[in-house]
Amino acid sequence: MTRARELGIAVGRGRPGPLNAITDVPGVRVGHATLIEGDGPLLVGRGPVRTGVTVILPHDGNVWEEPLFAGCHRLNGNGELTGLEWIRESGTLTSPIGLTNTHSVGVVRDALVARAVAEHDPRQTFWALPVVGETWDGVLNDINGLHVRPEHVEWAFLGASDGPVLEGNVGSGAGMICHGFKGGIGTASRVVAPEAGGYLVGVLVQANHGRRERLRVNGVPVGEALPPSEIPLPGAPEGGHGGGSIIVVAATDAPLLPNQCARLAQRAGLGIARTGGVGEHWSGDLFLAFSTANRGLPASEYGGSSPFTVPITMLSNTHITPLFDAVVEATEEAILNALLAAETMTGRDGITAHRLEPDRLLTVLRRYEHSL
Amino acid sequence: MTRARELGIAVGRGRPGPLNAITDVPGVRVGHATLIEGDGPLLVGRGPVRTGVTVILPHDGNVWEEPLFAGCHRLNGNGELTGLEWIRESGTLTSPIGLTNTHSVGVVRDALVARAVAEHDPRQTFWALPVVGETWDGVLNDINGLHVRPEHVEWAFLGASDGPVLEGNVGSGAGMICHGFKGGIGTASRVVAPEAGGYLVGVLVQANHGRRERLRVNGVPVGEALPPSEIPLPGAPEGGHGGGSIIVVAATDAPLLPNQCARLAQRAGLGIARTGGVGEHWSGDLFLAFSTANRGLPASEYGGSSPFTVPITMLSNTHITPLFDAVVEATEEAILNALLAAETMTGRDGITAHRLEPDRLLTVLRRYEHSL
Amino acid sequence: MTRARELGIAVGRGRPGPLNAITDVPGVRVGHATLIEGDGPLLVGRGPVRTGVTVILPHDGNVWEEPLFAGCHRLNGNGELTGLEWIRESGTLTSPIGLTNTHSVGVVRDALVARAVAEHDPRQTFWALPVVGETWDGVLNDINGLHVRPEHVEWAFLGASDGPVLEGNVGSGAGMICHGFKGGIGTASRVVAPEAGGYLVGVLVQANHGRRERLRVNGVPVGEALPPSEIPLPGAPEGGHGGGSIIVVAATDAPLLPNQCARLAQRAGLGIARTGGVGEHWSGDLFLAFSTANRGLPASEYGGSSPFTVPITMLSNTHITPLFDAVVEATEEAILNALLAAETMTGRDGITAHRLEPDRLLTVLRRYEHSL
Amino acid sequence: MTRARELGIAVGRGRPGPLNAITDVPGVRVGHATLIEGDGPLLVGRGPVRTGVTVILPHDGNVWEEPLFAGCHRLNGNGELTGLEWIRESGTLTSPIGLTNTHSVGVVRDALVARAVAEHDPRQTFWALPVVGETWDGVLNDINGLHVRPEHVEWAFLGASDGPVLEGNVGSGAGMICHGFKGGIGTASRVVAPEAGGYLVGVLVQANHGRRERLRVNGVPVGEALPPSEIPLPGAPEGGHGGGSIIVVAATDAPLLPNQCARLAQRAGLGIARTGGVGEHWSGDLFLAFSTANRGLPASEYGGSSPFTVPITMLSNTHITPLFDAVVEATEEAILNALLAAETMTGRDGITAHRLEPDRLLTVLRRYEHSL
Repeated sequence: MTRARELGIAVGRGRPGPLNAITDVPGVRVGHATLIEGDGPLLVGRGPVRTGVTVILPHDGNVWEEPLFAGCHRLNGNGELTGLEWIRESGTLTSPIGLTNTHSVGVVRDALVARAVAEHDPRQTFWALPVVGETWDGVLNDINGLHVRPEHVEWAFLGASDGPVLEGNVGSGAGMICHGFKGGIGTASRVVAPEAGGYLVGVLVQANHGRRERLRVNGVPVGEALPPSEIPLPGAPEGGHGGGSIIVVAATDAPLLPNQCARLAQRAGLGIARTGGVGEHWSGDLFLAFSTANRGLPASEYGGSSPFTVPITMLSNTHITPLFDAVVEATEEAILNALLAAETMTGRDGITAHRLEPDRLLTVLRRYEHSL
Repeated sequence: MTRARELGIAVGRGRPGPLNAITDVPGVRVGHATLIEGDGPLLVGRGPVRTGVTVILPHDGNVWEEPLFAGCHRLNGNGELTGLEWIRESGTLTSPIGLTNTHSVGVVRDALVARAVAEHDPRQTFWALPVVGETWDGVLNDINGLHVRPEHVEWAFLGASDGPVLEGNVGSGAGMICHGFKGGIGTASRVVAPEAGGYLVGVLVQANHGRRERLRVNGVPVGEALPPSEIPLPGAPEGGHGGGSIIVVAATDAPLLPNQCARLAQRAGLGIARTGGVGEHWSGDLFLAFSTANRGLPASEYGGSSPFTVPITMLSNTHITPLFDAVVEATEEAILNALLAAETMTGRDGITAHRLEPDRLLTVLRRYEHSL
Repeated sequence: MTRARELGIAVGRGRPGPLNAITDVPGVRVGHATLIEGDGPLLVGRGPVRTGVTVILPHDGNVWEEPLFAGCHRLNGNGELTGLEWIRESGTLTSPIGLTNTHSVGVVRDALVARAVAEHDPRQTFWALPVVGETWDGVLNDINGLHVRPEHVEWAFLGASDGPVLEGNVGSGAGMICHGFKGGIGTASRVVAPEAGGYLVGVLVQANHGRRERLRVNGVPVGEALPPSEIPLPGAPEGGHGGGSIIVVAATDAPLLPNQCARLAQRAGLGIARTGGVGEHWSGDLFLAFSTANRGLPASEYGGSSPFTVPITMLSNTHITPLFDAVVEATEEAILNALLAAETMTGRDGITAHRLEPDRLLTVLRRYEHSL
Repeated sequence: MTRARELGIAVGRGRPGPLNAITDVPGVRVGHATLIEGDGPLLVGRGPVRTGVTVILPHDGNVWEEPLFAGCHRLNGNGELTGLEWIRESGTLTSPIGLTNTHSVGVVRDALVARAVAEHDPRQTFWALPVVGETWDGVLNDINGLHVRPEHVEWAFLGASDGPVLEGNVGSGAGMICHGFKGGIGTASRVVAPEAGGYLVGVLVQANHGRRERLRVNGVPVGEALPPSEIPLPGAPEGGHGGGSIIVVAATDAPLLPNQCARLAQRAGLGIARTGGVGEHWSGDLFLAFSTANRGLPASEYGGSSPFTVPITMLSNTHITPLFDAVVEATEEAILNALLAAETMTGRDGITAHRLEPDRLLTVLRRYEHSL
């Protein structure tokens, strides 16, 4: 597993946090359950399996009982991210975030429900509206074998940590493909300059999107300089259309209100654009942003007693642009980290997605002085 | 099972279709799987069970292969209706519509995926983004026992018919409560006047929303004239807050474009308002509208070959207001039909939701000359 | 000028504020400039004139320097309300609100700019994005004569008061028509019960929408019980299509965040629905809601120095439903007040819009026990 | 006036249309009225004047009588683009598009109203909801002198042509500043490959946005390689915050439905992102896209008689991604063209905005092999 900065590639001019990960935002934890098993021809229900579950816990408490402000944005909608209507309406995130493959959204959703329910008296009036996103890993994975089971969600929770985040072929990213290379999970962060508030912005992507020829790294048209992807997309048209998807989750400790979170979410798409994505028609490019700053918001539970009003803190809009810069850069770098961390993988029917070889990348970048 | 018109109650001035149901729109089919089993104290996983699945098939073909134009609207977002990002982006409905309880959305979603997948070569590039909505039946049902299983989705499909629609305590409406009475599934339709185009608008509701004291029938404040509801909401505050939700699905054979469908969807909320709802904070009031008129739209499938352009027909905006009138009235009447069709039900822990007694309703309405 | 409550008509069950007007919300001021001049045939540029300007000042300070949280909603978009993109983006109202006729939006906008500019050093970096709404008074008014001039905006400001609000044929409402009767400006308010927080919600409408036959008062189908409207709409189809528009401005002293303001704004449309509107195709039904509670927000001015964060207060979502009830009722009553306050008016070409006669209204309502 | 391609700079890999301008889309015309007068210290109302009006006529007929499908997107909302509610609601553009400075939106709007009215019998029921956008030119221009008058709108119409489009310091772009250089009007186009349908996409920008240090050309960080901008922003904080705005108008002859137009509009923001914009807080980044393909749509006029339905053509969603690529590239190139076409300008108080010198740009680009 390689990261961009280990290769000397710094995206943009901003400074990353200590881990250069979404977990730099205090309280945020990430856990993976990775399912890689079997080889050879596809036998639906038997494998090969190249998939998994990733969970993001937005703070160190129980988010069902203590929501955070959140907002979302759709660059392109060929995808699913459940729970968005409640985020848009209430302006809050009241669920851990689950990520998985397209055809396992249901099982992960119901597993999150079961976890939430287990913490409540079943006679009480409680309901859960979990947040679960997906991208499609069917090129490598026996996606229709539905190999994700509720216990894998448990595993992901058990492994959740606020330390360095595993990237590449892990968790829900196990079988993903990005810009014609092996993709998966990536993360990065930025610390806004002290004179701009010193806030942290962390990003995690599940990167399964993009066309090879459009890939850019730090503005350099890397994709054009490398040979075309040879990954077959069975049944797909010659050359594909940029199918795939990318889920972006952004966290910040800046005290953003719900509408400010939605603004942050939209800018994640600008990072994707700078890396070569255009929100292709067959792509589900859905973004979620939340702020960990205002703790103690009243529980979004029916009948919960709560005071009429709560004191909160908001970032002055005047100071929000540096956070936009940060999320753009962190998204760019998280995509690049996903590409570099992923290892070459052979999946079902012997289909192989090759990694973006660091050496080849560096060779291209060295032609462009600015990029290193 | 009683319907409003059998009691002589005609909502508004519009004329219903032959069945006064969403199935008046040619090609639309509805199927239910009703799960009612057991009595007595709640034992999570054992029951009592008061829930189910309802499916709406939007046309007589395979909607995965042949989408319809569609749009949606959120009056209040304390609910889930999966697949909305794709409907908003593509302007099309590419999935049958599943309805169930809040904690079974996942299993129904994955069952719809499995059905779609079964019709495709698993080696091909295909993914499904199903549309599944929910409301919460936990007052009467062992909702956390997760009694809905994939086979129940199959049953609902097997029973799908374009004939009269069962209402009340059926399918996903089995355990619902509406305006403090037993609620559930309701439907109604309107035929726009011939000089306004003669189009059909059909509505199906899963009605689980509203406060007793606000219920209105044809403008008459019925809820104020009847005693308060005695349904306990365990753990809920005194009097409740209008928790619950309502899903509205509207179909029409008028050739609406996607944005016109979204306009129709928003007006469903006006019918709810006239019946006494306000989009309460704890309510998930989500609406979906689709048009069956433009058949033959290219499949929203990756890599599907399709012509560059397709000829379609659109309703002139100039003629859309009569459809708005129709969906408002049909939504009002569908809610009333849900209330009248539902029978008194005793659920878990002996909790009873009483029906809206036709006699009591008529007694109140007779005081108001206009309402009959 | 008559008001609904003077006739004994109480809309809903909520309690109005002392003035039953938007000015019950502390700090809110309303001013009108009414332009009524000339009679006889239409001579474009000469009259007859039946139009004006209304301004709403959202607090007692300078709103350009001290914004308020705000949100908006579109029920139907055949209208203009400038400044909405900034309200949606920033979540704040940074402008007084101007209302006028459709073809004078520009002059009122530029007059608001000029007022704002006059308070700033012209060498500084300052720009204004005013909020100006409209409805169309061309049935009675020489709307294309463009009789509104910048000084009329000044007059409206000069007369702005936090006392009782003139209604009916005043200000921007001078020439409006509503449900086939003479319409115009109306206002109403509600005080939420002390145990629900005791907040004030005030509404002002510029009512120029609706079809006669759909008018409802307190649920009673008044419009059906009265003869059809005889107002000619020159060039319009037989019977019209419900052309016209309604602008609703809602104010509250509850500490709503921007997204909560938008939620409040959407509910204004439910009040319109209960009174008989459906968001007709030819109607511009645009709603703006703001909260006066969080004063001291940083100025939305470029380069304004401001602290990174500001402490604010938010209403717990748990307590928002009573505000929804309030805005629904206040909108209903404000429309009714507009109808009752307006006097019969003869405009250009001798076209007459008759008032809704209180006696005729009461005669109809007396048939329905609940309505008085 | 220089254009990027004259310098050998080709943005992206797509092929421009014959004029490389929005006027490559058949029927689209552009006209400018440029107001440049006076020098020296700012005397409000006297000058110096550096502003103007640009109009875009979307087809060769009367767009008030014959709308086109259209959609819009907001990347950041610190700006005004009137008429958007009607575009969102009806899915159509029913107005020519006017562009000007921030404080002259009103006069341009009312001038468009007057033009539309002049074509109608004033006794008929007709109203106009014009589309007018703006950016702020107050650094160079006596913006508060309100020098734009209705006759300037006439001049712009009189000069409207479907030929090459003047760029830089012309029309509404006269006084604009972009990425710390002199900005203004820019345009570009792309022809989608024949095998992708061969459609044209044309873009026109009014570019007044961006920070010097973030400017990128074809991915090359040009802004970092050039000295910081020395344009003072009186009253602005040290270094500014990226104030300014960009309006993008995109036209295509592909038969897009309203929702497809909105999708195209969102992608304009991705071109801005690739050039260095992030939708800064003080920026009004508003985008409008329309399709000229479906002529003959019924007039959006009240009471206009029209058939119930109209036959139209839609682009299959499957083929939309190449249009996304095209609008991204065309927006990038239009911004670059605005920068290169603009000449150094000294405005009020002797403030000078320097052009982006072609030689300096080429010197930087030559270090990067890919960029030429």
